[in-house]
Amino acid sequence: MYGLIGKFTAVAGQRDALVELLLDCTDDMPGCLSYVVATDPADADAIWITEVWTDEASHRASLSLPAVQQAIAKARPLIASFGNATTITPVGGYGLGRREG
Amino acid sequence: MYGLIGKFTAVAGQRDALVELLLDCTDDMPGCLSYVVATDPADADAIWITEVWTDEASHRASLSLPAVQQAIAKARPLIASFGNATTITPVGGYGLGRREG
Repeated sequence: MYGLIGKFTAVAGQRDALVELLLDCTDDMPGCLSYVVATDPADADAIWITEVWTDEASHRASLSLPAVQQAIAKARPLIASFGNATTITPVGGYGLGRREG
Repeated sequence: MYGLIGKFTAVAGQRDALVELLLDCTDDMPGCLSYVVATDPADADAIWITEVWTDEASHRASLSLPAVQQAIAKARPLIASFGNATTITPVGGYGLGRREG
């Protein structure tokens, strides 16, 4: 499995709009096992995304999906900055849905 | 929802044993929506845990479960250090299983 833990900072006042955009495109991503969008109780503009994919190729392919491309285009003006993303190697656990890749 | 992103450092050579212990206790945690254990491709001793719970009380209660208490007791000697845990507020996404609380 392949995973990412990422943090974004939204343009002030745009966090919730950005969250909505990020949630909109999670419906049909082949190879996606988990995709959680979270806010940060310590930072009103921050958004955390934790993702688990069957493999890195599935994640990469998702970035080319039309729905994801559209969401990225809409989201970009709402993002003030990207934090460091951490690549992880999920081993197991609970809540890893299985989708046809 | 209530979430945590945490990083541990295992005692050298004990990472995989620690991962097994952490996975063993994920079977029956009321209120747990997601619990993913991951290794770190950039740090051979590191373990990441990302957790989503229905609320903070469910997470706190899980720490008192006998299976979790036993796992903590076994895991402690294998942990060299705890990194900073980040508390997050998950809003939605994919892979959030529902369990009876």
